[in-house]
Amino acid sequence: MKHDVNYTMLADFYELTMGNGYFQTGLKDRICYFDVFFRSVPDGGGFAIAAGLEQVVHYIQNLCFDQEDLDYLRNKGTFSQAFLDYLSTFRFTGDIWAVPEGTPIFPREPILTVRAPAIQAQFIETYLLLALNHQSLIATKSNRIVRAAEGKMVSEFGSRRAQGADGALLGARASYIAGAGGTACALSELMFHIPATGTMAHSWVQMFPDEYTAFTTYCQVYPNTATLLVDTYNVLKSGVPNAIRVFREQGITTGAIRIDSGDLTYLSKRAREMLDEAGLSDIKIVASNSLDEYIIRDLLTQGARIDAFGVGERLITSKSEPVFGGVYKLAAIEDEQGRVIPKIKVSENAAKVTIPHFKKAYRLFENATGKAMADYICVYDEQPDFTKPLELFDPEATWKRKTVSDYTARPLLEPIFQQGELVYKLPTIQEIRARCTREVDSLWDEVKRFEFPHNYYVDLSEKLWGIRAQLLDAKKHSKD
Amino acid sequence: MKHDVNYTMLADFYELTMGNGYFQTGLKDRICYFDVFFRSVPDGGGFAIAAGLEQVVHYIQNLCFDQEDLDYLRNKGTFSQAFLDYLSTFRFTGDIWAVPEGTPIFPREPILTVRAPAIQAQFIETYLLLALNHQSLIATKSNRIVRAAEGKMVSEFGSRRAQGADGALLGARASYIAGAGGTACALSELMFHIPATGTMAHSWVQMFPDEYTAFTTYCQVYPNTATLLVDTYNVLKSGVPNAIRVFREQGITTGAIRIDSGDLTYLSKRAREMLDEAGLSDIKIVASNSLDEYIIRDLLTQGARIDAFGVGERLITSKSEPVFGGVYKLAAIEDEQGRVIPKIKVSENAAKVTIPHFKKAYRLFENATGKAMADYICVYDEQPDFTKPLELFDPEATWKRKTVSDYTARPLLEPIFQQGELVYKLPTIQEIRARCTREVDSLWDEVKRFEFPHNYYVDLSEKLWGIRAQLLDAKKHSKD
Repeated sequence: MKHDVNYTMLADFYELTMGNGYFQTGLKDRICYFDVFFRSVPDGGGFAIAAGLEQVVHYIQNLCFDQEDLDYLRNKGTFSQAFLDYLSTFRFTGDIWAVPEGTPIFPREPILTVRAPAIQAQFIETYLLLALNHQSLIATKSNRIVRAAEGKMVSEFGSRRAQGADGALLGARASYIAGAGGTACALSELMFHIPATGTMAHSWVQMFPDEYTAFTTYCQVYPNTATLLVDTYNVLKSGVPNAIRVFREQGITTGAIRIDSGDLTYLSKRAREMLDEAGLSDIKIVASNSLDEYIIRDLLTQGARIDAFGVGERLITSKSEPVFGGVYKLAAIEDEQGRVIPKIKVSENAAKVTIPHFKKAYRLFENATGKAMADYICVYDEQPDFTKPLELFDPEATWKRKTVSDYTARPLLEPIFQQGELVYKLPTIQEIRARCTREVDSLWDEVKRFEFPHNYYVDLSEKLWGIRAQLLDAKKHSKD
Repeated sequence: MKHDVNYTMLADFYELTMGNGYFQTGLKDRICYFDVFFRSVPDGGGFAIAAGLEQVVHYIQNLCFDQEDLDYLRNKGTFSQAFLDYLSTFRFTGDIWAVPEGTPIFPREPILTVRAPAIQAQFIETYLLLALNHQSLIATKSNRIVRAAEGKMVSEFGSRRAQGADGALLGARASYIAGAGGTACALSELMFHIPATGTMAHSWVQMFPDEYTAFTTYCQVYPNTATLLVDTYNVLKSGVPNAIRVFREQGITTGAIRIDSGDLTYLSKRAREMLDEAGLSDIKIVASNSLDEYIIRDLLTQGARIDAFGVGERLITSKSEPVFGGVYKLAAIEDEQGRVIPKIKVSENAAKVTIPHFKKAYRLFENATGKAMADYICVYDEQPDFTKPLELFDPEATWKRKTVSDYTARPLLEPIFQQGELVYKLPTIQEIRARCTREVDSLWDEVKRFEFPHNYYVDLSEKLWGIRAQLLDAKKHSKD
């Protein structure tokens, strides 16, 4: 694959200072468990879409320090020679479990868990978060926009406004996973097999003496795929009439027009009428210009006659909320006897208190409807009997209880690496995209509302809840 | 340099469909002039900071289609074999002028101008915009944050929340150019020589039986550079007392503490008192946690005792406004006799009407103060006499006039490529950073306000204003 680079050094420097510290104090091989999770869904939505795991896999597989890296680190004067020697053969030898890409995910539950010697587990933090945060952000936004479009095609058009080349390329990938139908970016197709399309900019129209000549010339070159941009001068007085004239003169019946400015509802309705009156009912109307889920929903509510949407900066940067706040927190360590000791991170803010321990997570589907009812998190050594009814309770308001029966439980995380070996077959992007469609379909509509969605249940087992309460209580009384 | 990749194919597909169209219709070598400019300053600020030119230079120098690219394009079935043959030896042979990185820039003025054969000039649009938009966005944000910090150190901490690897790396670069003093990211130092620092995360503290042991161990490893993170349990009851105990026990007087949660004003004041009472006046206080220019300004206004700021997601994504809206518009074409024909793009929205023609731009500095007074844009063939007083006028409200004298004019754009050859000596990042400091200092304070800044003048020559008025008038009367 093009541009498959080694991002070993894309790490916060403190991962290395801590690593050197663990190395010098005998903690380097202490087994640690870290969880990646997030605390709130962007844009106030009801769920996010997991993405970025494939890049995490490539990162872990490529993880190694080359001579340039080691020279740089030596010159910092911060590290012992023994530590640098250790880094020269550094590989990831631990275990990773993760939610497959394209899966809806919810706040506070683990979406990736690492079990590895301390230095390794700590070191990979920065890139793991970067990869998962970025693509989950864009996938989540894309899915909102695609749902707003109600089945009409959404294309990702934002490369020129992306935050760097990866922002454009992996942003196109995440958009496609979550339902966008294509991209404007050629390299995104070459790298990720996302269909790339595109026809003309305003500059094409300006290059010719007049709009009619520009359209005529374009249709002569591309008689079967022309999408004529009709707003360079005036959509209804110039662009649409010239497009109709050229389509008719050249006998073109399957092209499209694109409107990139002005009132898209009004202009699309009038353009549709004009095209229909000219016998061009199969000519499609594409709209672009600062679109997002809210504007698309409003356009469709108002009866805009738009067949496809090109979405740029508001998708590729998730403009309304450009940060996905995934964090990487220590959940447990093993003591010298190999016992798993749960760890908690307390906070003034209740929502910031972590769920401790090495955990397993399940998604529970109602058999009658196939709908997801709740996610259920328990301690790694529990063996819940999902053939029996299960009592769920709200971990904050424990008197809110509900017993579920006739359901199917599916593990939420899958094994990705075991002892440093990849044990996961990376799905194709088409498989990931199909998974996303299927899994989002399994959510109730109430969870899918854009504003004030129903809170999906992420519940703890009695045992896990008890351990968490105990650890919290111990912190309260400690002098730390 | 690491990761120096060829981004030729990072182009919107329509650059290629238009290119093929120009190729087939005899327009491929028609000389075109395109300007990059932007329409509004992010966050309502008074100016932006230009950045990203170095990446544009690398892109132009590396521009070529390899066999994989050509195979991909052939398989699309859209292009003629003659066009693919043409692409196989495609190079950039035109001219580029640009504002040097680190320079304050203002809406509507050209920040980069391309003169090249049509296919070339059109093709490079996507990557040029991506590179300039991304880094100018982050540089602009960084400069706001650095100015808010009033000389206290600002470090860029945001890799884990960046939009992709380039978002992290080039974001760190842009942050540093505009005044941030360092980065948390090791690879940013390795690639761009931005000082990287970092000490510990909460997980370090959690790895040990208690906070005191965690701090003791860390200071034993790093006696000279320890920054102890004091908010894992309780800042004032646990973190600061443990830090003081460890600093005193080990005789450390030059370290720091970092506060990453809670009320930073209150906590920093109390922590300062506690440190001072313990005779640790040289121990610094670092603050982090969702900082930006507004919060930093408020903290300092309230007397927070913070010596340095770590700024993460709100800098690396420019969270409050994550898009820099630079555009690439046709300004002129040459006719078959080599005459430069100005082109204008009209719009319903007056602010979106372009400034036509191949242009020159100057920044005028008042000799008495060294302050920038206005930017002055004229037609390429004008030779303004800057030894004489110059009458400036507002291009929208032309009755607002002002005559300036005793000033120095400096060309705003410098030649970067001539006939495809690089003629610009790329400055070092330190030189760019120094330029930014110097050039921002040359702006009046009124232009530097965070909210409702004074509008800096970007004025047109009489001749350019007249040509624009003429073209607008012609559009009004045309049937296009």
